[in-house]
Amino acid sequence: MTYLDKLRRAKSLLCLGLDPDPARMGAGETPESFLNRLLDSLEEAGALPSTLKPNLAYFEQYGSKGLAMLERLLERWRSKALIILDAKRGDIGPSSAAYARALFDVWGADAVTVSPWMGRDSLEPFLERCPERGVYVLLRTSNPGAADLQLAQGAWRRLAALLTGEWFRPGLGAVMGATGPEELAEFVGRAPNFPLLIPGVGAQGGDAASVLEALGDSAPIHRVNVSSGILYASEGALEATRRYAASLAPHSGQKR
Amino acid sequence: MTYLDKLRRAKSLLCLGLDPDPARMGAGETPESFLNRLLDSLEEAGALPSTLKPNLAYFEQYGSKGLAMLERLLERWRSKALIILDAKRGDIGPSSAAYARALFDVWGADAVTVSPWMGRDSLEPFLERCPERGVYVLLRTSNPGAADLQLAQGAWRRLAALLTGEWFRPGLGAVMGATGPEELAEFVGRAPNFPLLIPGVGAQGGDAASVLEALGDSAPIHRVNVSSGILYASEGALEATRRYAASLAPHSGQKR
Repeated sequence: MTYLDKLRRAKSLLCLGLDPDPARMGAGETPESFLNRLLDSLEEAGALPSTLKPNLAYFEQYGSKGLAMLERLLERWRSKALIILDAKRGDIGPSSAAYARALFDVWGADAVTVSPWMGRDSLEPFLERCPERGVYVLLRTSNPGAADLQLAQGAWRRLAALLTGEWFRPGLGAVMGATGPEELAEFVGRAPNFPLLIPGVGAQGGDAASVLEALGDSAPIHRVNVSSGILYASEGALEATRRYAASLAPHSGQKR
Repeated sequence: MTYLDKLRRAKSLLCLGLDPDPARMGAGETPESFLNRLLDSLEEAGALPSTLKPNLAYFEQYGSKGLAMLERLLERWRSKALIILDAKRGDIGPSSAAYARALFDVWGADAVTVSPWMGRDSLEPFLERCPERGVYVLLRTSNPGAADLQLAQGAWRRLAALLTGEWFRPGLGAVMGATGPEELAEFVGRAPNFPLLIPGVGAQGGDAASVLEALGDSAPIHRVNVSSGILYASEGALEATRRYAASLAPHSGQKR
C-alpha cells in the first residue's frame, strides 16, 4: 500500500503534533509518560487521530534517553496511526541517506519532513522511498522568517514548480502554512495529487473550515496539524481533538 | 572565552569530520570503537586536530544507541578539541530552541551547523548562544544541489549580506564550499571576523594551499573540513592528518 493510499483511508484530516514541552507537562512526567497518557485517553474514547507527527526536537533535547523514549512510543503507536516524523533534515547525499535510514528504517516513519535548502541531491535518499513512504518538503512555512528566503524573489514558487514538475513522484508532498486559503486553493488546483501538511491553524480552530474548503475534492490526502491546541487545551485534549477532527472531516466544510 | 578566541588558538585550520560509514568500518566495529581507535592513535602521535566535527546523521542511523555512542565520544574528546556538531537543524522558534538545548547543553557542542531556510526566527535560539558558542549557517554548499535554491536569483549573496549585516554577532559564521578561491577571498575581504567552515577540499589536498591563500590574514578563525580523506585514507589516518594539518597551518600557504 502506498503512502497516498494510507492517507486516503482516514476519516479526518487532523494530524496531532507531538511536541512535548517540558514547561507544560506535570511534575515528574517525561515526554513518554505524558504522551502515552494522552494518546491512551484518546484511543479509549475512540478519538485517536489517524495521523501523529512527533517533532524530533522535543525528544532530542533529552539526549539519547529522549530518543529511546521516542522509539518506545513509536513501537506502541505505529500500528494505530500514520506516523509523520517531523525532522526537517537535509544534508549532502551520503549524510541524507543516513538520516533516511534512521527515520524510515530505525524509527519506522510512514513519512518525514525535509528541508530543501541544499537542493535535489540532498533530497534524493528520501525521494527514493516514495511511493511507499511520504516526503514533505518545507515549501512555504507560516513563521515570520519565511519572508527571509522562501518568499524572496519568488523562491517558494520556483521550488513548488520543481516539486510538482521535474522532481515529482507519488508520495512527494510539501509543508505549506495555512497562511491564505487563496494560495492553498491555487496550489491544490495545479497539483491535485500532491499531499500537503498544513500547520498554522489556530488554537481557536477558526480557520479549519476555510482551509478545508480551499482543499476541495483533494482534501483526503492532505493533513492539517494541530499541536499545542490539543496537547495543552484548557477544555481538555479529548474535547479539543473531537472538535478539530469534526471540523476537519472531508466534506464537512465544503460547498457542494 | 568566546568561540572566536577558541578558534584563534589552533595551530592548524584542519577540522576532522567524524562521519563513520558502516560500509567502511571493520567487521564488528561500531562508530564509537572505530572513532576512539582512530582518535587515540592521532592523540598518541601528537597529531589530534584542534577541531572535530561529528555529523549527527551517522550516529542517528543507529537510533538512540548511536546517540548514546555520540554522548560517550563527546564526553571523552570534548576537553581535547573544539567540537562542531554538524546538525543542519532549523525549525520554528520553540522547536529550534529545543534543538539548541540538545546540541549545546546536552551534547556540549562548541559550535553547530544550522539551516537558514525557515529564516531568522528559526535561527534566533542558536544565535542567542553567541559569542560563547559558534553558529555556522549553511550559506553556499559545494554539492550540485546548491544550484537549486542557494544560487538561484542570488539567494546566497542576499543571505550573506544578512549574516554579515543585520543578523551579525561575534560567533556567527557560515558553511561555504571550497568552490572557488576568488569567491572565498571576496567574502573574507568584506567580513574579516566572520568564521567560515569550508568543506570540499579534495582527498588529494590539492586545494588546501589556494584556500589558505584566499583566507589571508583571517585564516586562523576559519576551518577546513576533511572527513573521508582522513578516516579512510589509504596512506593511513595519521599520515593523512599530518599532511593536511601541515598544508592548513596559517601562513604556510600565504604569499607575503
